[in-house]
Amino acid sequence: MDSKSTPRVVVVGAGFGGLNAARLLARYPVQVTVVDRKNHHTFQPLLYQVATAGLSPGEIAAPIRWVLGRRSNVEVLMEEVSNFDLDRRIVITSEQQIPYDYLIVAAGARHAYFGHDEWEPWAPGLKTIEDALEIRRRVLLAFELAERQAAGGEGAVSLNFVVVGGGPTGVELAGTLAEIARHVLAHEFRKIDPRSTHILLLEGGPRILPTYPEDLSRSAEKQLGNLGVEVRTSTMVTGVEPGAIRIGESRLPAAVILWAAGVAASPLGKKLAAPVDRAGRVLVQPDLSIPGHPEVFIIGDLAALKDEHGNLLPGVAPVAIQEGRFVAHTIGRELKGEARRNFHYFDKGSLATIGRAAAVAQFGKIHISGFVAWLAWLFIHIFFLIGFRNRLIVLIQWAWSYFTYERGARLITGSTNLPGWSEPKPAGVSSQSPADEPSKRVAV
Amino acid sequence: MDSKSTPRVVVVGAGFGGLNAARLLARYPVQVTVVDRKNHHTFQPLLYQVATAGLSPGEIAAPIRWVLGRRSNVEVLMEEVSNFDLDRRIVITSEQQIPYDYLIVAAGARHAYFGHDEWEPWAPGLKTIEDALEIRRRVLLAFELAERQAAGGEGAVSLNFVVVGGGPTGVELAGTLAEIARHVLAHEFRKIDPRSTHILLLEGGPRILPTYPEDLSRSAEKQLGNLGVEVRTSTMVTGVEPGAIRIGESRLPAAVILWAAGVAASPLGKKLAAPVDRAGRVLVQPDLSIPGHPEVFIIGDLAALKDEHGNLLPGVAPVAIQEGRFVAHTIGRELKGEARRNFHYFDKGSLATIGRAAAVAQFGKIHISGFVAWLAWLFIHIFFLIGFRNRLIVLIQWAWSYFTYERGARLITGSTNLPGWSEPKPAGVSSQSPADEPSKRVAV
Repeated sequence: MDSKSTPRVVVVGAGFGGLNAARLLARYPVQVTVVDRKNHHTFQPLLYQVATAGLSPGEIAAPIRWVLGRRSNVEVLMEEVSNFDLDRRIVITSEQQIPYDYLIVAAGARHAYFGHDEWEPWAPGLKTIEDALEIRRRVLLAFELAERQAAGGEGAVSLNFVVVGGGPTGVELAGTLAEIARHVLAHEFRKIDPRSTHILLLEGGPRILPTYPEDLSRSAEKQLGNLGVEVRTSTMVTGVEPGAIRIGESRLPAAVILWAAGVAASPLGKKLAAPVDRAGRVLVQPDLSIPGHPEVFIIGDLAALKDEHGNLLPGVAPVAIQEGRFVAHTIGRELKGEARRNFHYFDKGSLATIGRAAAVAQFGKIHISGFVAWLAWLFIHIFFLIGFRNRLIVLIQWAWSYFTYERGARLITGSTNLPGWSEPKPAGVSSQSPADEPSKRVAV
Repeated sequence: MDSKSTPRVVVVGAGFGGLNAARLLARYPVQVTVVDRKNHHTFQPLLYQVATAGLSPGEIAAPIRWVLGRRSNVEVLMEEVSNFDLDRRIVITSEQQIPYDYLIVAAGARHAYFGHDEWEPWAPGLKTIEDALEIRRRVLLAFELAERQAAGGEGAVSLNFVVVGGGPTGVELAGTLAEIARHVLAHEFRKIDPRSTHILLLEGGPRILPTYPEDLSRSAEKQLGNLGVEVRTSTMVTGVEPGAIRIGESRLPAAVILWAAGVAASPLGKKLAAPVDRAGRVLVQPDLSIPGHPEVFIIGDLAALKDEHGNLLPGVAPVAIQEGRFVAHTIGRELKGEARRNFHYFDKGSLATIGRAAAVAQFGKIHISGFVAWLAWLFIHIFFLIGFRNRLIVLIQWAWSYFTYERGARLITGSTNLPGWSEPKPAGVSSQSPADEPSKRVAV
């Protein structure tokens, strides 16, 4: 470390881990550079609400500069990190090389397709605002195209929506899609009945919410059933194609397929000369640094660390937040000459929402379900949102939606095609009557 | 008209004209089909607020189905109309042919480039939500790229933003961009000073807001000056290229160029076998129908109609709303056997906002400027927004922004390139120091 100048800490990624590290580091005598390829921090726990038209992107995202702007020893760069030179202590972006004294890598994770990346175009996952807008587009467009098809004289079709993966994201998506089909859109169509939409949640393992206690998994499955979702466990997807999904030997037509199954760590994890696990997570030391480089820390979804019971810490916001704060303090203390400590995660509990007034929660030995769990989920999420304005507006949106069954952001933007639906016929003057030209469109 | 069944009215376009026609038609014994290529009605007067990150798209848009959903004799189709067969009374979409007894075409207008459509990629206009998001992306990204460039050791650059066209949209955009540069972002960057951003508003004619009284044009120019906008009138753009604009013989580097100059009516206007003016607007009869086809009406920005003084009615929401309601009543009355009347526009006044606490307004002979005009503008726009939730949330967003100088939707989504900025260097391991590789980036 250069003893003549202020130590420079580079933080890669401004998710929960990176942002909390940077906020706390700002109190120490260091110069902090936060690098993120986006200009905004995304509140990922509410991303499914953007995907299901309940909230607007601006209501769950905050500009990184705005969050950190008042801290004069913090700078923010919107750039994509491509590599590291650990020996020379340099972060390499597409634009420049940034030297560091300490490095915190908090680059997160993406969804993974178990080696079937070719499925992605037909079954988008949910990790970014762009992902959420694409899912929203597909969900809303499916109903519009079904109505159009029925109005064109091809008879009413009933829609299948398939969600792959029974973790918290899959459960949230399936539950909210059911609410949209059964309540939000129920009376707005003339040729189709959105209430006949079939929502299917597929889980490869024996139960949904596998990281939760068994009684809560059972409760979640029951609550999903009440909302109108069919849950199939121990079910493996064998193929995804435009407009259909393959389960074992059978092929199920599907208007929309959403992917909430696998997770893969950022590819940056493999560029750190440290061992990684099967999902690409970096196996960190007990102080969250990597072997041979005590000045390099990995936090959040990119880090693999086991708790005292030998269980891997889950990829959730509270873990990332505590890791970010721990690493900031570790650096601050080290600059004062203090010794390092080991990281310990303090588990305050877990909550998963399922839908309207439906959720499960575990606080230590206390397991709760239904309305009370849902209220707890709601207020905890409002509380952790960044920015008072976002909190106020999300609270209003939710209260409004709860009482009216309306959703605040039902926009289709971008392309108006959907995989598996045929392209529109070429436009132009035609004097044929509709009956002369039977449609070749695929019914899904 | 088929006397055996309920008359069918097809409304093409769900802007202010089409939506108001459909709402009122629902009260008459007719079957209404609204066809729009979008699923949402866009409140165009506030589109510039989405483009300048003040509001989220969902806050100024309303799903057409939701607006019309409770009216059982109205159906909504999300399809693109490609042509008409006036003799057989059929609307041709990309998907089907829709028969009608009455047709209302309210397909609106787009921005136009005076025969230079090749300028569009470098100078986007503002007519749809997608347009607004593209402008927002460019504006916010310009500051990020300038900071990145300066951090990469190329020295601070000052940014030029150019808005072409001094009508209400150009004035709103320029005024709000000045507020963003001078206040919203002022303290969030370390290497550049957003307050040094140069905002230039270009107008081809001798004064901005040419449809307003001269004293209000002068006032608007003064108010823009106070906000930090340079206004150049009688200035013709001779070229637009990536990262620069040509004015006469000179070339001005520009980080972002926005187009608010020309307007061209929807190309559907030319498919109606009726005369059109130079901008493609259909020259309608005094009852808003077209010659030889009393069952076909044109309303809103697509219609060209002169008032009693020989002035063309402007392409603004109040004209479209009154025309939509007039045509609905005309059809309703005709079904009762009553005679047709001529349309008369009742001008309640005009307002144009300029920026924070800055606006001009004309109500008959009363001309007002500044804070009072701005308050009038604000409440009138809140009042006309569709949906109580949108009104409440927009009001909160505005109050918040007014007191904090923050903006609620500062997200960059989509591509992270900007025309005129060089592509990022190829990513990969490199042991060169930054000084070895001088950048070729264009300074704008």
